[in-house]
Amino acid sequence: MRVLLTGAGGHVGRTVFEGLRGAYDWQLMYHSQPTEDPGVPFYTGEVQDIEDVRPAVEGVDAIIHLAGDPRRGAPWRSVLTNNIDGTYTVYQAAAQEDVERVVYSSSNHAVGAFETEDRTPEIYRTDDEFRLDGTELPRPGNEYGISKATGELIGRFFHDEHGLTVCNVRIGNLNNDHPPIDYERGQAMWLSPRDCAHIHDRALRADYGFEIVYGISDNDRKYYSIERAKEVLGYEPRDNSAEWDGKERVD
Amino acid sequence: MRVLLTGAGGHVGRTVFEGLRGAYDWQLMYHSQPTEDPGVPFYTGEVQDIEDVRPAVEGVDAIIHLAGDPRRGAPWRSVLTNNIDGTYTVYQAAAQEDVERVVYSSSNHAVGAFETEDRTPEIYRTDDEFRLDGTELPRPGNEYGISKATGELIGRFFHDEHGLTVCNVRIGNLNNDHPPIDYERGQAMWLSPRDCAHIHDRALRADYGFEIVYGISDNDRKYYSIERAKEVLGYEPRDNSAEWDGKERVD
Repeated sequence: MRVLLTGAGGHVGRTVFEGLRGAYDWQLMYHSQPTEDPGVPFYTGEVQDIEDVRPAVEGVDAIIHLAGDPRRGAPWRSVLTNNIDGTYTVYQAAAQEDVERVVYSSSNHAVGAFETEDRTPEIYRTDDEFRLDGTELPRPGNEYGISKATGELIGRFFHDEHGLTVCNVRIGNLNNDHPPIDYERGQAMWLSPRDCAHIHDRALRADYGFEIVYGISDNDRKYYSIERAKEVLGYEPRDNSAEWDGKERVD
Repeated sequence: MRVLLTGAGGHVGRTVFEGLRGAYDWQLMYHSQPTEDPGVPFYTGEVQDIEDVRPAVEGVDAIIHLAGDPRRGAPWRSVLTNNIDGTYTVYQAAAQEDVERVVYSSSNHAVGAFETEDRTPEIYRTDDEFRLDGTELPRPGNEYGISKATGELIGRFFHDEHGLTVCNVRIGNLNNDHPPIDYERGQAMWLSPRDCAHIHDRALRADYGFEIVYGISDNDRKYYSIERAKEVLGYEPRDNSAEWDGKERVD
């Protein structure tokens, strides 16, 4: 399967590519020229420019679309262009080039405003029963979150009206080496690098139509359900932030 | 109560203003200079330009935001600018100027893709039980619908993070004089002019935080529930497309 990865220079992009390098025929899209040759075909350009996107999309079976302004504090102007317009443009090119599937990197910030003062910090703790499962209406906590929830809507449209298979992965807190330290929220939504690669692998291979799933490891602390990802994608996370004591894994 | 109405030159805008003219202290915002003086303070400008919007918003208690490209076939570029960016800009000005409430004109097109081949035309008929009630995730049927569903998300953000009271009215088919003729879908989502004015009146006065309601008359044919609008807004529609035989009301 030939797969285009946009946002290849970003944190999630590098994690997915490193973890699944041998599993697919990759082509990568970067915002600017990479400092090292990735060893596979690559493109550079603006995702909101169809002329930049089309050559990168041509001939692929699937796209993992991660490109965009990743800053939780990104201003409206930037997310409107890079994230909302960029995501529409990638889907438009995908539909025009008969790409079958798009895996879209959504975010916990699409639902960040569920973390109200009344609910926190309790929802980050293991004895709290509150769960989001992806069927709830989004509640973005910032402009970045608005842009990510809008990307999901765009995917819904391209699934319904253009027949694309679409999976939205609401990515938690991708932290390398170990879960966030002294940060309950980060531990509740930790996504380990190998679980990150694995959930994208499953989203590329599983049989479904349109999905919204939460991308976190199997943490004891959690307020995102991973049942849908397990059931529909066959996601089998191997990590759990509770197994770590600061920087060391506890056996 | 001083109320700003954006999109005052459009079909819904004219209907709301005519129906509620005496009930509020109005100021109007038009895209271009109106041909007749409306008899109340008015502004012209681009809703996506904060410099145009701020003077119109200053000093009002509430905004009815209708401005945008209203065409169901509007291209992405136009709805991205006029509808998505325009709606964010109006909310941004509202938050800056301490406006208490925004009533946002959403659309049936935000959920247009629920009308699948399997469900239609049955869902337009009186014996069909299928209902949308506003708790479902949107399924836009076109780019215009994406922009309207995104406007709802923007409102959710400004409610959660800036404390605005927000009501999204998913407007059906506003047809003057009589319901659409020989058009089952249009009869199922008919909103009469007086019910249109009334639901906006209720959205300006009722006590709530954030709502998504369907704006249709009390039609026998329907696949949108109006229970939430009745319960929370106190909406009491007076019209029903079933009471019309073509252009004549049947007693």
